[in-house]
Amino acid sequence: MRETDVVVVGAGLAGLCAARAVLAAGRDAVVVEARDRVGGRLLNHELAAHPGKVVEIGGQWAGPTQTALLDLARELGVDTYPTYNEGENVLEWRGGLKRYKGAIPRINPAILADTLQAQKRLERLAKTVPTGAPWTAPRARELDSMTFQTWLNRACATKGARTLLELGCQAVWAAEPADVSLLHVLFYINSAGSFDDLVGTEGGAQDRRFVGGSQRVALRLAEELPEGALVLGAPVRRIEHGDDGVVVHADGDVRVRARRAIVALPPALTNRIIYAPPVPGYRDQLTQRTPQGTVWKCMAVYDRPFWRDQGLTGQATSDRGPVRVTFDNSPPDGTPGVLLGFLEGDFARRAGRQDAGQRRAEVVDCFARFFGEAAHTPTEYVEQSWAEEEFTRGCYGCGMTTGAWTSFGEALRAPIGPISWAGAEVATTWSGYMDGAIRSGREAAAEALAALQASSGPGSTVTAGLGRRSSAS
Amino acid sequence: MRETDVVVVGAGLAGLCAARAVLAAGRDAVVVEARDRVGGRLLNHELAAHPGKVVEIGGQWAGPTQTALLDLARELGVDTYPTYNEGENVLEWRGGLKRYKGAIPRINPAILADTLQAQKRLERLAKTVPTGAPWTAPRARELDSMTFQTWLNRACATKGARTLLELGCQAVWAAEPADVSLLHVLFYINSAGSFDDLVGTEGGAQDRRFVGGSQRVALRLAEELPEGALVLGAPVRRIEHGDDGVVVHADGDVRVRARRAIVALPPALTNRIIYAPPVPGYRDQLTQRTPQGTVWKCMAVYDRPFWRDQGLTGQATSDRGPVRVTFDNSPPDGTPGVLLGFLEGDFARRAGRQDAGQRRAEVVDCFARFFGEAAHTPTEYVEQSWAEEEFTRGCYGCGMTTGAWTSFGEALRAPIGPISWAGAEVATTWSGYMDGAIRSGREAAAEALAALQASSGPGSTVTAGLGRRSSAS
Repeated sequence: MRETDVVVVGAGLAGLCAARAVLAAGRDAVVVEARDRVGGRLLNHELAAHPGKVVEIGGQWAGPTQTALLDLARELGVDTYPTYNEGENVLEWRGGLKRYKGAIPRINPAILADTLQAQKRLERLAKTVPTGAPWTAPRARELDSMTFQTWLNRACATKGARTLLELGCQAVWAAEPADVSLLHVLFYINSAGSFDDLVGTEGGAQDRRFVGGSQRVALRLAEELPEGALVLGAPVRRIEHGDDGVVVHADGDVRVRARRAIVALPPALTNRIIYAPPVPGYRDQLTQRTPQGTVWKCMAVYDRPFWRDQGLTGQATSDRGPVRVTFDNSPPDGTPGVLLGFLEGDFARRAGRQDAGQRRAEVVDCFARFFGEAAHTPTEYVEQSWAEEEFTRGCYGCGMTTGAWTSFGEALRAPIGPISWAGAEVATTWSGYMDGAIRSGREAAAEALAALQASSGPGSTVTAGLGRRSSAS
Repeated sequence: MRETDVVVVGAGLAGLCAARAVLAAGRDAVVVEARDRVGGRLLNHELAAHPGKVVEIGGQWAGPTQTALLDLARELGVDTYPTYNEGENVLEWRGGLKRYKGAIPRINPAILADTLQAQKRLERLAKTVPTGAPWTAPRARELDSMTFQTWLNRACATKGARTLLELGCQAVWAAEPADVSLLHVLFYINSAGSFDDLVGTEGGAQDRRFVGGSQRVALRLAEELPEGALVLGAPVRRIEHGDDGVVVHADGDVRVRARRAIVALPPALTNRIIYAPPVPGYRDQLTQRTPQGTVWKCMAVYDRPFWRDQGLTGQATSDRGPVRVTFDNSPPDGTPGVLLGFLEGDFARRAGRQDAGQRRAEVVDCFARFFGEAAHTPTEYVEQSWAEEEFTRGCYGCGMTTGAWTSFGEALRAPIGPISWAGAEVATTWSGYMDGAIRSGREAAAEALAALQASSGPGSTVTAGLGRRSSAS
């Protein structure tokens, strides 16, 4: 039985940053992680024929307003570089290809005007939603009682605008507009700043990348932890909790007794842990309403980024799919060339039931349509769906269902006794992003530290009652 | 290590009926149940001052078209009797009380006409939704992309009609109209027959009650099981599965090896079991989109059913709440008198965060408003919220979120290797009801039996690979 001040469940960015903040305050922390690695949804993949060169099969970008992430990376010595963005983008639209520079494709101006107007209305509405308490927005109940699709149907006069904003929804939430509450969409936009912040490359959430891969941020955090503070390969199965603290049980006979716990998992996974006593219905039912998105991240590797020769950024958007959005994901020096495509929402759900060969063929076909025949012969193909991963079960983050924020929202962040909650989904700034994960971890740590400070009790003892529950299981 | 043909997880009606059907076909079955009793959401409560007299704190009614339930009860020797329905009903409406006979209260005829018209449209739409495959309905995607609230806002010309149908939604789904997909509402109506079938007392889903309490049906099924076929107090935590079968692990070192498994739990709870190998993302993500409803069932006991003296049925409906719907829930001989009130949807979520005294006071105040001062002094008060129950986590059943049926619906009933799914939520007829639970259990058993029949393999051996996974955990 290990003893510590704060036990952290999950060694993603949120968990690692929570532990770091606890340690920085002079308290002891132990992080217990299900996988045999740190990083959660951050994962580097070394390219087969290019030793030392990596692409990320999880989260990878940083934007200029993501200061928690950028400052942390700087502090840890992880450099960034701009996402490749030189030349023209491609839009596949109604059966043809259009090249364009910047953010605005050259399609029917009526559609563009309609899209921009709807987007403006969305931004204005988003500003009315307090990110710390979306349920207190002036029209919260109304906004939470409809899907984003319902709103799009009303807000867009043209089918084209609807299609473009559906594309945006799939790209940002890895969900269909039918899946998510309008209030959640507004909360999320406001937590990032604006819709442009979410979808933008230069100046937006896809602005920069990490030299050596984004997982390095997590790996560096883990290296900093004191000896023995990180337990890998130990899925937490049970948390006993009471006034005096917690006992956390994980596979491999891992047991950690602590005065506070920080559970840094997606909300949808927090209910797969057994709590003794059980958490209140209000909290449990929230976690039945926080589904994770669905996305396949697919990359094809080529000797060279051949699209650059044609004056293309490697960024494409398609109204046809299954690949809806692409990026040039080559390493900083441009060798090898890597095309990245996302299958999102229903495209991803369909892809998840295809065999791998079929999926790859469809993805590479898309790349060839957007960038030419050369795309048909990659030297390597890499793909990942986090929905298939037992310890994530979906990406990018959760899309709250209709009614969830207004009926259960307070339960998202409210501690249960000695248990605090962290993770990108719990963040109030850049919710769903690495930046939000870092912030949420620090906030959970502050909550735990304040409780430790306030407690005048006998320290890290857990009641006999809790011990009894443990041995009876 | 126990060995059997079919292991059933969960001893609710679905699980017990599945086991019964397997045994009736000459195969062996073992039922593993988390609680120390059978019945799941069926639970009798003996009245404190009336030994031998019970009320149900879970599901309790049967309707005339619920033939699977009625026939089973008859077979098991459990008698039924009509729900008390003599006299006038009460409607609390816009600050006043109205008494009325039958189904239609005497309020503004424009509101009534509007309500009936909307209901008719709902019924017509419901008929277009195949209950075995709602995603194949002609306008499935459109119907699944909006909440029931969005539809109500459009379909009702008057605020009054909206209120009445919201009341119906809360009563049937224990959810707010904002919580559920319109397609789910339509599926559910069609699976029951009609909206009137769902909300009706005489002739509807609340038509009859069970002498001695509904749990007797489950208790009688359990009595019939052969020695050792029922393991109580053993929450299943892990299911290893492969081509040759399953090994089920439960608390208390219970291990059962079988050729097939039937998991008879609400979908939202099925993901709290560890599957080795993990289930596909498509199945897991479905279970992130099947939230259970929220309802407090509250009963006050009186020496006599005093409302009967006033010519009242004991059935009230209120636009104010927190109790929205009441029934006379007295035993067959009318002694003692029992008033039953439901707190549903957001009222239930609020009630779950009140202290018990406050909640009781508000409920009894409602009874007094509807039926007179005498209601203020019950001799006993009983309440239950299944959202608080670790092994249920919500009632009555699940309300699929928007997009869930069309994006994930096929995963609800599709077996995963040797694992079949059962439970009221999986039913295609009377989904969410005891009747549906029975039917779903039988269908899962038929699926398992057909697989046993078809398999020409070496019988109930599980691969070495599975054993290895097991010992590594």
